[in-house]
Amino acid sequence: MKSTTEKPSSIAVDWGTTRFRAHLVAGDGRLLESVDSDEGMGQVRDGAFEAVLAHRCEPWLLAFPGLPVLMAGMVGSRNGWREVPYISCPAGLADIAAGLASVTTSGGATVHIIPGLVTADAAADVMRGEETQILGAGVDDAVVILPGTHSKWAIVRAGRIETFRTFMTGEFYNLLTRHSVLRLLAEPQADGSDTRSAFQAGLDAAAADGGLLSSAFRVRTGVLSGRLSPRDVEPYLSGLLIGSEIARAIELAPPDLPLVLVATGIVAVNYSQAIKAAGGAVTVVDPERVLVNGVLRVARHNKDTSNVRPD
Amino acid sequence: MKSTTEKPSSIAVDWGTTRFRAHLVAGDGRLLESVDSDEGMGQVRDGAFEAVLAHRCEPWLLAFPGLPVLMAGMVGSRNGWREVPYISCPAGLADIAAGLASVTTSGGATVHIIPGLVTADAAADVMRGEETQILGAGVDDAVVILPGTHSKWAIVRAGRIETFRTFMTGEFYNLLTRHSVLRLLAEPQADGSDTRSAFQAGLDAAAADGGLLSSAFRVRTGVLSGRLSPRDVEPYLSGLLIGSEIARAIELAPPDLPLVLVATGIVAVNYSQAIKAAGGAVTVVDPERVLVNGVLRVARHNKDTSNVRPD
Repeated sequence: MKSTTEKPSSIAVDWGTTRFRAHLVAGDGRLLESVDSDEGMGQVRDGAFEAVLAHRCEPWLLAFPGLPVLMAGMVGSRNGWREVPYISCPAGLADIAAGLASVTTSGGATVHIIPGLVTADAAADVMRGEETQILGAGVDDAVVILPGTHSKWAIVRAGRIETFRTFMTGEFYNLLTRHSVLRLLAEPQADGSDTRSAFQAGLDAAAADGGLLSSAFRVRTGVLSGRLSPRDVEPYLSGLLIGSEIARAIELAPPDLPLVLVATGIVAVNYSQAIKAAGGAVTVVDPERVLVNGVLRVARHNKDTSNVRPD
Repeated sequence: MKSTTEKPSSIAVDWGTTRFRAHLVAGDGRLLESVDSDEGMGQVRDGAFEAVLAHRCEPWLLAFPGLPVLMAGMVGSRNGWREVPYISCPAGLADIAAGLASVTTSGGATVHIIPGLVTADAAADVMRGEETQILGAGVDDAVVILPGTHSKWAIVRAGRIETFRTFMTGEFYNLLTRHSVLRLLAEPQADGSDTRSAFQAGLDAAAADGGLLSSAFRVRTGVLSGRLSPRDVEPYLSGLLIGSEIARAIELAPPDLPLVLVATGIVAVNYSQAIKAAGGAVTVVDPERVLVNGVLRVARHNKDTSNVRPD
């Protein structure tokens, strides 16, 4: 961890089910230092949240006493450090900042946890962490797409998150590629091999056909009949699932709103290709970047974290 | 195993991925004796198929030398006793009977394996075992529905199987209830408790909503918000998946054909309720009954098994 002489504004933490990511953030949002570990919610035993924070961020906490620590993600869930009640949609920066809950560590540090959101409709769909990324995207009117294990599509108008919907796309991919009969047909991709055509074939199948229950089986028949290479099974399934998500989500997205995709790497490539194939266009923003921006925006709108300098 | 003095016509075996079921069958189709074990394809090691047959059916084979043994199911697959080439649709009794392949055991018994079917379309959908049940249903014109891990919907006209389609309904149910995040929310049903309303709620969700990727997550939000009891998770998911299968399959089913459901027990109850909810009506037939009928019909149309007495 490199040392820094610049006075940071805060420590921004993205603490989800599988990862712990912390950033020492300058007043202008630049990342001065970062740490990343696999100590997600699922890994923390006996509620030892403070121990993880102390272990990963000790140098920062010692060097900058009183520096506000802000966290987003499942850390605010029932099984997290402290359960923070969901804020009901529609919700904007002020609503979310007002819902901030805090924990004081034995070391005297104050940890502020950003609340998640619940939709106002009967589905009562929920998110924790994505609300901060959406705020960080800084869009007034857009459909913000956050791919993942449980992908979110959020409708933002006048800077407020009106509603959103979850798709279990990443989880279904894991189920089919790790636990289903289809896993037996798959072979790993050769390094650097082109997966675009197999992914596109999956997109085409999702667009053409009636339902995942039927189209997923086409992977098996495709390999049996030689139409599909075992190495194409995973990108094909990825295309099939992402294509299915987008086919549904596009129907729900107000056509007057631009699409903003919060993704990087292969996920950004896949979703961009899929949305383009569905006739849409997206602006891609970096997940880490918008998370940190969102944390700073929330911090600056909460009196307890007012020592986070404004831009 | 009770003894019998009546001369049987054949031994009918349903040998799939998970079960081995054999029946000593009278000329009129009555079951004289039956054995059932978990020695499905997945359990047979080192190709020891003959050993399983000898072990389970030895008394019959000794008592009735030369009695034809007919098998249907995955026993005819690449990983089975002998791979029997698929017959291409449209296919009727004569086509399937002509595709019979045989194996002679070291004990001198001749085992005839009934071929599976492949569709003529680009999907090249496949089945092994269900073709025999469809023939055994004895319908000239119908849509035959065979629920299961991989449910099949087959279109039969003039006694021939024109085409069919597979839905991974049972497998998706196992994936979601055993391996997904939703499994953590589920509690087992109390014995004798009513699951119909939760199942119906799942059917309604399937009919109302856009896609499994989204509607499956409603189980999580439903439990979190208290709308859904942990004990209702599994019947709700069952309704959601069966409802999704039927919503798609009904679109593909020619409206002029009656629906015949090959199912028993809770599966018959679930599919009957779901099809009724979708505005359809079904005739329910017993899976074991139609399997045996199908084996006999095939046997009587193949010269090598002509010693199977006609009705």
